[in-house]
Amino acid sequence: MNIDGTAWRTIWLEKDGHSVGVIDQTQLPHKFSTLKLSNCQEAATAISTMIVRGAPLIGVTGAYGLMLALQEDPSDNALEAAFKQLNATRPTAVNLRWALKRIRDKVKPLQPAKRAEAARAESALIAEEDVAMCEAIGNHGLAIIQKLAAGRPSVRQKEPIQVLTHCNAGWLATVDWGTALAPIYKAHRAGLNIHVWVDETRPRNQGASLTAYELGREGVPHTVIVDNAGGHLMQQGYVDAVVVGSDRTTRSGDVCNKIGTYLKALAALDNGVPFYVALPASTIDWSISDGVAEIPIETRSAMEVTHIQGRNNNASSNNQLTTVQLTPNQSEGFNPAFDVTPARLVTALITERGVAAASETGLMELYCDD
Amino acid sequence: MNIDGTAWRTIWLEKDGHSVGVIDQTQLPHKFSTLKLSNCQEAATAISTMIVRGAPLIGVTGAYGLMLALQEDPSDNALEAAFKQLNATRPTAVNLRWALKRIRDKVKPLQPAKRAEAARAESALIAEEDVAMCEAIGNHGLAIIQKLAAGRPSVRQKEPIQVLTHCNAGWLATVDWGTALAPIYKAHRAGLNIHVWVDETRPRNQGASLTAYELGREGVPHTVIVDNAGGHLMQQGYVDAVVVGSDRTTRSGDVCNKIGTYLKALAALDNGVPFYVALPASTIDWSISDGVAEIPIETRSAMEVTHIQGRNNNASSNNQLTTVQLTPNQSEGFNPAFDVTPARLVTALITERGVAAASETGLMELYCDD
Repeated sequence: MNIDGTAWRTIWLEKDGHSVGVIDQTQLPHKFSTLKLSNCQEAATAISTMIVRGAPLIGVTGAYGLMLALQEDPSDNALEAAFKQLNATRPTAVNLRWALKRIRDKVKPLQPAKRAEAARAESALIAEEDVAMCEAIGNHGLAIIQKLAAGRPSVRQKEPIQVLTHCNAGWLATVDWGTALAPIYKAHRAGLNIHVWVDETRPRNQGASLTAYELGREGVPHTVIVDNAGGHLMQQGYVDAVVVGSDRTTRSGDVCNKIGTYLKALAALDNGVPFYVALPASTIDWSISDGVAEIPIETRSAMEVTHIQGRNNNASSNNQLTTVQLTPNQSEGFNPAFDVTPARLVTALITERGVAAASETGLMELYCDD
Repeated sequence: MNIDGTAWRTIWLEKDGHSVGVIDQTQLPHKFSTLKLSNCQEAATAISTMIVRGAPLIGVTGAYGLMLALQEDPSDNALEAAFKQLNATRPTAVNLRWALKRIRDKVKPLQPAKRAEAARAESALIAEEDVAMCEAIGNHGLAIIQKLAAGRPSVRQKEPIQVLTHCNAGWLATVDWGTALAPIYKAHRAGLNIHVWVDETRPRNQGASLTAYELGREGVPHTVIVDNAGGHLMQQGYVDAVVVGSDRTTRSGDVCNKIGTYLKALAALDNGVPFYVALPASTIDWSISDGVAEIPIETRSAMEVTHIQGRNNNASSNNQLTTVQLTPNQSEGFNPAFDVTPARLVTALITERGVAAASETGLMELYCDD
């Protein structure tokens, strides 16, 4: 993806070959800056403080985090300690565990001296695979958008296709392309007239900050709305499809994604708007079936609810990022970070292998050889 | 209602008998301050800039606004001009039009010299009636909460009754008591163990600022959540009932309320949580039946989406109210202020005359003598 004409990824091995570079997403959209992660602790902090976020990117960062740990101490004990430390940073996304296990499985049989190098190669491979998977999701999703565009009544053919998305499942959430936004980028590049309704996505505003930033940089027409507005827009016919990402998908097709996704799925069903979830295989948790009952939902700091960060444009403040308090001093907040959208509300899953019904049968048709 | 031990209303005739005092709600919860409205223009500005807000309070402010206009010029022309000016401030709430018409009907037959005084008396009467209606809503709603409490399984009897509310339909939205919050205040005073989930209510955060402020001042246990969280809380069994207000109610029981209300109603239905709307008769628009098609939805400034106000707690900033920008410079926002919850999603309407089914039949049973 491009930022001001330069191709970027969200994570990369630095030229020294031993440290990892990332975009500091806590500063976006107001400031573009990068950070160098030099050890496992820094990788863990980058994940827990959401310098990097998005299920696929968290997975790749976790993988590189193990590499950073093994560079310092390649022993079995150090490997297990780093695995534990990184795995504890975010409990809901399943990619993190998946990527950490993949690195551990790869390096554990090796002699300690060879482990860091093997982790480096495997992390790079995970990153490349992620890019390829996201691009494949983009192509499968593009076909859906093309069908939607063609299927509209002729009086609406000149209007843009209207897609609503929640949170950020764009290239900032992955290594490149994104999941939910990949079909949108593909459609935009294919010359389709597409417009995106961007849910703000309180409390951390990944929509208003990251998705709006991404789409703006790629020149995709978009409008930011508060999370409350999507139901009304669907009711009034202003949404042709909803496309979101997934942090964990059960084998039955339940989708755990950013808090608030479930509300948009309910509104989509109520208004006959198709609701798509874009996800790579790494977010599928084959071990569980009932998402509402079985997926642990991360509770984050109440400060994310009671306070908010933005850019202070007052002349005296120098455009500084500033945190302001929204609530009365005595009022507490509660901050569950994800919710579960039951499979019955999901029109289809868009995966790197194609489009599947949100059900065990649908997923097995694509993945039964694994 | 009490603020730090002093009884307050949201609007009052000042001691001079010719100007009107209001609480400046744009400064809450961070600063409690009052404003004096001395002419019709100031009343119109107070409504349009949301110094006062909430359908019932807007109605009373509109009524007093006509009084202020008639004090300066009691002619027919001035009356019509003031009516138009005040009526244009907010298009969605029906109370405003209702209150303006009531004053106009009252003063029009009178000699100009007697009009201001008559408007003064009628505005005071509307205010008193509003207080009485809200208290009656509180009593009818209390009976519902008591039933909910008694109907819970015995293992849950020691837990608080959990009520979720959206926006602010408390005493700050009315003259006193509130609509949706009146049953909660009644329940709290009756010694029921009640806890309120307070939807933040982006973009203007009336929940996080005004509802949290009110409940805190009255000592009602509450927790602020982002608008995205309610569906998850209902899914997990943490909500016993939803109670919201209404800016306009059709004769068929469709409810137009703050943007996002519809999403909570969908989640309530999906999880078997009762969804109640508390409203005085003045919000009923008998002239329309289909809320989704017929109610004009106010679009407010996109700045309310792209920017947010809060208190800057940095040492150097002196706790000033500060506005920060949330979105990238190039990204636009869209800001519909209300949505419509179809009657099929509403468990019941709580009115000053009792509890009604959300249907023409239900409303006619209570109001057929009018």
